[in-house]
Amino acid sequence: MKLIIERAALLKSLSHVQNVVERRNTIPILSNVKMTAGDGKLRLNATDMDLDIVDATAAEVSQPGETTAPAHTLYEIVRKLPDGADIELDATSGDGQMVLRSGRSRFSLSCLPAGEFPVMSGGDLPVNFDLAAVQLKDLIDKTRFAISTEETRYYLNGIYLHAAEQDGAPVLRAVATDGHRLASAETPLPDGADGMPGIIVPRKTVNELHKLIEETEAEIRVSLSEAKIQFSFDGVVLTSKLIDGTFPDYERVIPQGNDKEMKVLRKAFGDAVDRVSAISTEKSRAVKLTLDKGSLVLSASSPESGSATDELESDYAGERLEIGFNSAYLLEIMRQVEGDTIVMSLSDAASPTIIREEGDDSALYVLMPMRV
Amino acid sequence: MKLIIERAALLKSLSHVQNVVERRNTIPILSNVKMTAGDGKLRLNATDMDLDIVDATAAEVSQPGETTAPAHTLYEIVRKLPDGADIELDATSGDGQMVLRSGRSRFSLSCLPAGEFPVMSGGDLPVNFDLAAVQLKDLIDKTRFAISTEETRYYLNGIYLHAAEQDGAPVLRAVATDGHRLASAETPLPDGADGMPGIIVPRKTVNELHKLIEETEAEIRVSLSEAKIQFSFDGVVLTSKLIDGTFPDYERVIPQGNDKEMKVLRKAFGDAVDRVSAISTEKSRAVKLTLDKGSLVLSASSPESGSATDELESDYAGERLEIGFNSAYLLEIMRQVEGDTIVMSLSDAASPTIIREEGDDSALYVLMPMRV
Repeated sequence: MKLIIERAALLKSLSHVQNVVERRNTIPILSNVKMTAGDGKLRLNATDMDLDIVDATAAEVSQPGETTAPAHTLYEIVRKLPDGADIELDATSGDGQMVLRSGRSRFSLSCLPAGEFPVMSGGDLPVNFDLAAVQLKDLIDKTRFAISTEETRYYLNGIYLHAAEQDGAPVLRAVATDGHRLASAETPLPDGADGMPGIIVPRKTVNELHKLIEETEAEIRVSLSEAKIQFSFDGVVLTSKLIDGTFPDYERVIPQGNDKEMKVLRKAFGDAVDRVSAISTEKSRAVKLTLDKGSLVLSASSPESGSATDELESDYAGERLEIGFNSAYLLEIMRQVEGDTIVMSLSDAASPTIIREEGDDSALYVLMPMRV
Repeated sequence: MKLIIERAALLKSLSHVQNVVERRNTIPILSNVKMTAGDGKLRLNATDMDLDIVDATAAEVSQPGETTAPAHTLYEIVRKLPDGADIELDATSGDGQMVLRSGRSRFSLSCLPAGEFPVMSGGDLPVNFDLAAVQLKDLIDKTRFAISTEETRYYLNGIYLHAAEQDGAPVLRAVATDGHRLASAETPLPDGADGMPGIIVPRKTVNELHKLIEETEAEIRVSLSEAKIQFSFDGVVLTSKLIDGTFPDYERVIPQGNDKEMKVLRKAFGDAVDRVSAISTEKSRAVKLTLDKGSLVLSASSPESGSATDELESDYAGERLEIGFNSAYLLEIMRQVEGDTIVMSLSDAASPTIIREEGDDSALYVLMPMRV
């Protein structure tokens, strides 16, 4: 393999794939990126055996071929080369080294044979549809903060993506929960997604995908089976195994009979939660909401620091209700809601509360109360 | 104590003092900030028993008095209150609580009696001089990175500040070393500083001072004895105990007979060190310099990743010399040197090397070589 490539193009391509490579690997070749040169292109491939990414970029290939080299080291080198430089990659010596030359810099990198690089078996991906990057990003933004980090509950360590119905219309819905809160977001079901299986996309895949689609405005091609999902756009192909488990019946968690409703201004509410939580203990982070006719009082206290109260106007018209929440959970939801006003639907101090954005039914948050 | 103060003024004052307060304290009152109100001013005082800071700011005092309250909690609350707010502090209830009111927010903070707050005995500070903030900042910038973090060598855990002579002129010199490298910077000796004792200013004091003087262009009043140093400016008074130890005779470490000299462009050299070090092992971070007539070759290698070389032009005219350095130490020096060109004075591969900025003798760096 021998080629010349612009530093900016190689850097961009490496930055796409290097995140997938884990910092510590017991299998040496998993620290490497596979490079395949041919047809005027350099194709990079990185994997952690669960998540596989391929990125292709234009290069002046003088000798097609393939090899693998340490991904993070290669990325660091390219990052530190001067802007505008041309880079030559040369793995033709046959001594297990790839030489990188640029200006007066010369690097020799230990390679491992490309043949040993693990291939993620393609398998059949029978379901195929397109989704705008902004829609996919929205589904992720509104749900990923609720993904569980408890490894024992592995079936909650991802976003549950499935076809559902909302008011008689078919939707693609994303749901995440950690048992304390649940986040659900949806978008109209794209053509080709009907009949898709319910799948759980792992957190690492969600986060990598989010980084990758932040820069693009492309349509994302989504292909999936019961075991795998693939996202393709702009020369990038991200393929991931799915979590092999059953997502709980989340619809049972969403209360239907919450009869008390309150509207408050999102920003004022978020600011007030943030303020009073300055006093709550780091451990519990509890904030108490006291709802009364036309008013909402937020309060917190800690044995060490003291107590705090703040007051907001609301349109609440029900009977007096005191309910506690984890302030961090409330703030995470406030960061995802976009509108000016939120609507809380409550039942009592021991039952889950629903939070929505006023006038937008495409996302919904369920929060378990805390005893305060 | 009862007063009204602008949120911005209180926030600024608290941000000055709260850094001194350690996150974990076995003595509860050390987590608190002491507040003293009177004469149209609120005076804040924080201490960790070694370092004491006082900051005063204007306030509408309706009832003079004093108390202490949790410093970090108070800072968090004030930070989260809206911009432009007025804040009332009221500790007149006599129940060990200070009430903070602003708009519809109300906080009650647990206080401890001001009488229990430790007072750093003033003592006599016989030496007094003024130094421009920019000069003091320069002395710190050019030396603090070399302060030792080895707690057993406590006498190296600070900057050695003393009066010295350079080419017959009196100077105020700052020196720090960790045994692997030494940094020395000086400024003309201010009036009043002659006859000052050599003192070791602890790292925490150096870092706090650096933060505080970054915002100011004032003259800094420096007062000191053999046991204490005090910095006063803009209503802030920072008082610190000094390290009670003997700084080593650093002048013996600075080689006098280095007969080989090389000039290189600072930025090109720093960039090349950074690039080749991408390949060196995280542990050693070694980079080898090979000096030969007119050229400088930088190289690094690691058993895992491979090897790297880079080449620069230099004016070197001596015999061929190979010498190794810790790349991180070289880069830290490059970040402090300001001019376009650096001058390295070398002897051999086992002897300390001197680095200076061309045409500027006010700072000097000594670096021990590494075996490569």
